[in-house]
Amino acid sequence: MRATVMYRAGDVRIENVPDASLVDSSDALVRITRACICGSDLWPYKEMSPVDVGRRMGHEAIGIVEAIGADVRTVKSGDLVVMPFAYSDGTCTFCHERLQTSCLHGGFFGMQVPGAQAEAVRVPQADGTLFALPVGEDDALMASLLTLSDVMGTGHHAALAARVRGGSKVAVIGDGAVGLCGVIAAKRLGAEQILLLGRHPDRIALAQAFGATDIVSERGATALERVRALTGGFGVHSVLECVGSEQAMLTALGITRPGGAIGRVGVPHYETIPNSLPAFYGNVSVGGGPAPVRAYIQELLPDILEGKIEPGRVFDRVMGLDGVPDGYRAMNEREAIKVMIDF
Amino acid sequence: MRATVMYRAGDVRIENVPDASLVDSSDALVRITRACICGSDLWPYKEMSPVDVGRRMGHEAIGIVEAIGADVRTVKSGDLVVMPFAYSDGTCTFCHERLQTSCLHGGFFGMQVPGAQAEAVRVPQADGTLFALPVGEDDALMASLLTLSDVMGTGHHAALAARVRGGSKVAVIGDGAVGLCGVIAAKRLGAEQILLLGRHPDRIALAQAFGATDIVSERGATALERVRALTGGFGVHSVLECVGSEQAMLTALGITRPGGAIGRVGVPHYETIPNSLPAFYGNVSVGGGPAPVRAYIQELLPDILEGKIEPGRVFDRVMGLDGVPDGYRAMNEREAIKVMIDF
Repeated sequence: MRATVMYRAGDVRIENVPDASLVDSSDALVRITRACICGSDLWPYKEMSPVDVGRRMGHEAIGIVEAIGADVRTVKSGDLVVMPFAYSDGTCTFCHERLQTSCLHGGFFGMQVPGAQAEAVRVPQADGTLFALPVGEDDALMASLLTLSDVMGTGHHAALAARVRGGSKVAVIGDGAVGLCGVIAAKRLGAEQILLLGRHPDRIALAQAFGATDIVSERGATALERVRALTGGFGVHSVLECVGSEQAMLTALGITRPGGAIGRVGVPHYETIPNSLPAFYGNVSVGGGPAPVRAYIQELLPDILEGKIEPGRVFDRVMGLDGVPDGYRAMNEREAIKVMIDF
Repeated sequence: MRATVMYRAGDVRIENVPDASLVDSSDALVRITRACICGSDLWPYKEMSPVDVGRRMGHEAIGIVEAIGADVRTVKSGDLVVMPFAYSDGTCTFCHERLQTSCLHGGFFGMQVPGAQAEAVRVPQADGTLFALPVGEDDALMASLLTLSDVMGTGHHAALAARVRGGSKVAVIGDGAVGLCGVIAAKRLGAEQILLLGRHPDRIALAQAFGATDIVSERGATALERVRALTGGFGVHSVLECVGSEQAMLTALGITRPGGAIGRVGVPHYETIPNSLPAFYGNVSVGGGPAPVRAYIQELLPDILEGKIEPGRVFDRVMGLDGVPDGYRAMNEREAIKVMIDF
């Protein structure tokens, strides 16, 4: 079968690889029908050191179950399923606590197991991982449903970690797909004011369509002043930090109102949380992490099916598998917000 | 009048100073009947650089209102009041959100205004700050009531920031008065298991009396192993970080279970929050800050009046005002847990 393999920064190839197949009795074999490229895939695309055995990329997909192991009970061949970026057994203590990203028998696609930018994928712990969709393969909502595998659930997680509630003033740092889904999530949870910190006109337009009330395109100290001016002088109750850079965290800390909360979902490219004293004196909390998107599908799905939210609009380019290397380039150069792979 | 003045590390004196008096129309003048020495007073006692004009120490007190400004409505002369360590107007947006430590017109005793280890104190924003007690000056509960000015409310705040709830496994880092009150708070909120990380036999005994189920006296990596062994391998849901050192925060991060929360109330003696990547991957949040103890008096007071909690047991030494310098020494040398000043 064909799959996406990364060998070093900037070197992404579509290659023939051995067919995915069942290994464990809890596995499912899924033929991919839609996948995508993630903002987090751009970190290795920018930074990865050369390797001999390439990394099999991709962690977001929808597909058809082709075969299941002997112990699989909740999905069957022919089911259309969404595949969260992390696999999880659904039965351990952390899965019961709805923190599937800390599953005792879990892992991540494209890390512990080969990724989903491929014609097929082996899904470990299929019962805990896969979610069967109540729609057909050609449903018009497919783009939005695909976001349940990562970015919509991740935006929702950021909003929960940032304690967004009815009437909140919210800032979303980052105008990538996760940030844009964060805008959707904040509005869905009742935010009164949603500031998007971003600079790309196409993304800003989409953010406004999703419910952003104010756009802050300034940088550094000027951005902090602008946020304070827009929020009555005190900053926002909730910050969704959807970038992962130290500068983004500094900005988050600088614009959070006393008693507020930062939900970070961008994979941190910093070791320590800087400037923590003002956060302490202001009782600002910092939370978040990899989103247990599996936990959120049940809650978010109805809003997608009813058309209340349209996170699929973050996909502004569709390619076949052969187009994936150019998709990485386009996202890295900010030509595309998010690339969907249609098989 | 006589008051406590600190001139440099280790140099605390009782001196004659001008009498406290009303300045603003929102002030109250309070004659102190009980005050105490705080663990946070030990930081300047250890580190303060020499100054010509000494610092007037003390931020925890009970006293009798002697006079009020023209605008004061909620307390009157003769009232027995508890004085939280921060003053606050009770009317600003942050006070309405019950975050009185961020009051727009607030400040801290011993910082912005002279402190309460003195015969009398001027209390700004008396209406928002003082809480009239429904007991007499010689009530046997006075020691416990005094803890409402700081340590009991601070322990409670740590427990809330660490999201302690029914059934939680909790660790309290620090066996000072705040840590001990944190044990009380965790038990009061329904914690199932309460680990105290501390090493002093007298404090450990008190922690056990307050509800600590396990004592961890090891240091460093051994302490982390011990906590994991005591908690089924995963660490605790909630950590009350009641010290403020970088090592204490590292320990907190090392023993928090995925999805758990750290509530820090020890004034941080570190600038950045170290080792934040495991916290991110485990969805561990870090919150807390100066406790809005004024917000908690109403909730905690009934339990003290009914004898359900006895935080006053943290006082293991009582002195007159002249004994305060020796009280600092005794607390600094860990001879005393917490010193009460009886006037």
